[in-house]
Amino acid sequence: MSIYLDHAATTPVDERVMEAMTRCMREHFANPSAAYSAAGQSRRVQRTARQTIARMLGCDHSEVFFTSGGTEGNNWAMQAAKEKHAVVSAIEHASVLEAAKAYAGSVTLVQPDADGVIRPEAVENAIRPDTALVSVQWANNETGVLQPVREIARIAHRHGALFHTDAVQAFGHVAVNVENIDLLTLSAHKFYGPRGAGCLYVKTGAKLPPLLHGGGQEGGLRAGTENTPAICGLGMAAELAEEDMTGRAERERALLDLFVQQLAGCPVRVLGGDRLPGILALFTPGHESEALIARLDVKGVQVSGGAACAAGSGQASHVYRAMGLSDREARCVLRVSVGRGNTSEQMIEAAQTLRQLILP
Amino acid sequence: MSIYLDHAATTPVDERVMEAMTRCMREHFANPSAAYSAAGQSRRVQRTARQTIARMLGCDHSEVFFTSGGTEGNNWAMQAAKEKHAVVSAIEHASVLEAAKAYAGSVTLVQPDADGVIRPEAVENAIRPDTALVSVQWANNETGVLQPVREIARIAHRHGALFHTDAVQAFGHVAVNVENIDLLTLSAHKFYGPRGAGCLYVKTGAKLPPLLHGGGQEGGLRAGTENTPAICGLGMAAELAEEDMTGRAERERALLDLFVQQLAGCPVRVLGGDRLPGILALFTPGHESEALIARLDVKGVQVSGGAACAAGSGQASHVYRAMGLSDREARCVLRVSVGRGNTSEQMIEAAQTLRQLILP
Repeated sequence: MSIYLDHAATTPVDERVMEAMTRCMREHFANPSAAYSAAGQSRRVQRTARQTIARMLGCDHSEVFFTSGGTEGNNWAMQAAKEKHAVVSAIEHASVLEAAKAYAGSVTLVQPDADGVIRPEAVENAIRPDTALVSVQWANNETGVLQPVREIARIAHRHGALFHTDAVQAFGHVAVNVENIDLLTLSAHKFYGPRGAGCLYVKTGAKLPPLLHGGGQEGGLRAGTENTPAICGLGMAAELAEEDMTGRAERERALLDLFVQQLAGCPVRVLGGDRLPGILALFTPGHESEALIARLDVKGVQVSGGAACAAGSGQASHVYRAMGLSDREARCVLRVSVGRGNTSEQMIEAAQTLRQLILP
Repeated sequence: MSIYLDHAATTPVDERVMEAMTRCMREHFANPSAAYSAAGQSRRVQRTARQTIARMLGCDHSEVFFTSGGTEGNNWAMQAAKEKHAVVSAIEHASVLEAAKAYAGSVTLVQPDADGVIRPEAVENAIRPDTALVSVQWANNETGVLQPVREIARIAHRHGALFHTDAVQAFGHVAVNVENIDLLTLSAHKFYGPRGAGCLYVKTGAKLPPLLHGGGQEGGLRAGTENTPAICGLGMAAELAEEDMTGRAERERALLDLFVQQLAGCPVRVLGGDRLPGILALFTPGHESEALIARLDVKGVQVSGGAACAAGSGQASHVYRAMGLSDREARCVLRVSVGRGNTSEQMIEAAQTLRQLILP
């Protein structure tokens, strides 16, 4: 049996979520836009999910827009830059960085400190009179480092800019709410929900152009027959994530602590400061992650070397580079991310396997 | 038990497709972009689906791009207009009409004849020297009427324009291939596949800007973690649709013929000429579809009054209007669309129920 330690890339769908989705496909397959009463049941399924997300985020349900996932949400949010200036952290996910380039007139990247934290004063220095949008993720997807989004949001507002945060990696793992935030992205498959389902929170009054044109779905902003089963799965996964959030966080933190303890004496170092409970970036000097990942894979241990999207690109992670590592060093970082299915025994086994690969 | 006669709005997911998706969620949940070997299995699932679609469409698998569905595919395709002039039929789905307005510099709408057919010569008359894109659907979603797309494509090419066809309603129900076509949209939930899954065929050489920016998925054109289970379901649904296509078409045609026969003596008329096997637009003069749909619903019969997206908008269908019906007449059209689960008994019962509502 393999030991899956790449929950930051994607999580397996919870069996209860899968069951709810299957039931939804069978019992509520009517197109929610149809005029007969069965369509009302489909709409109710969606309303329930929307209310769950709204309650967790602390917003009104009319501010929750369902999307096909995190990349779509981030692409949409970047359109709030309206071809003006955007301030974006240098360690954002590719979907924010690339979409900002596409939809903003110009982009200033804010570098993190050596701990991977985006300093509010660095954001303030980057803001210009024509800055329309500031985007800094809630927690980084390659280090798990939590960002001072609340303070950065206040700075953005002081300068008349909207504030977006990519909470894809954080939502469902730590408490996330939209206080002070104008736009927030989340994605179901990062918290045991289905692929192809996410939300963009859009604060009332924050103007965004429609993402997809056509029928009047999602308040006329995101056309297309709603993916009711996936939306149902998203809502249920969010509820389940909320239920055991505290316990799971403690458990995941303990699992990662155990993993690191087992590496005592190895020339490795954990990158970054205050982090999400389940994600860890491990600097393994002299050992390229590409080779380590392949060798660990043979032994049944699945880890990554940064964002999944960038795997195989041959490029060093822009996140680890921004934290001050050289190109060569940035190729020597493993991302280990734990989840519900992992056990202490697995962590010990995974750490021992890694030890054998990196100790001389 | 209700009699579902709105398969053009959406089809129930085939149990075999659901099972394949569930299996995929359990066994191939790895992010296909990851570097370990389990990700290769996810990639293989997607490759198989892509090859199935490519084989059915008669194109190369590199020309098939997975999307979140028909609306997304149509929105993307309209970006081929590159802010120049587009020629679009007046009876397209809202996602083509609205996206054409958004992405073309100007749009000329081509009206159908009284049979709901877009005449090739009418398209040719609308083309201008700066026309970059022509879009006419394979078959209409509110009448089922098949369009002379092959001939229209030749005309578009003769004038140096790209040709797009929205085959969302046709694919999986009649043979659809991309001969002479540059861009083609399809959607899984119209042929017993899942919501949130579709494709855009993009002919090699037909340039489209990226739809979503971020990771390098889908050849760098549609970023975002792939919805592997939905893609798997799309591929399986396409295969199943192909398997029984001829028999199903005959069966559906017979069911609709039976339905119409049972209405003998009623003042009704079927709109349009050569149609898809499973869709029928029934003009019921003097009986507004909104009221009929509600009354049929009470009796357990589910039909629609045109596109689901437009239900509840209070507007008469632009399709029936374009075919020459007055605003008032266009409000008196029922769309009846049959599928795998329907029986002769159901058609007789549905027709008898309708008779009672429209005969004095």
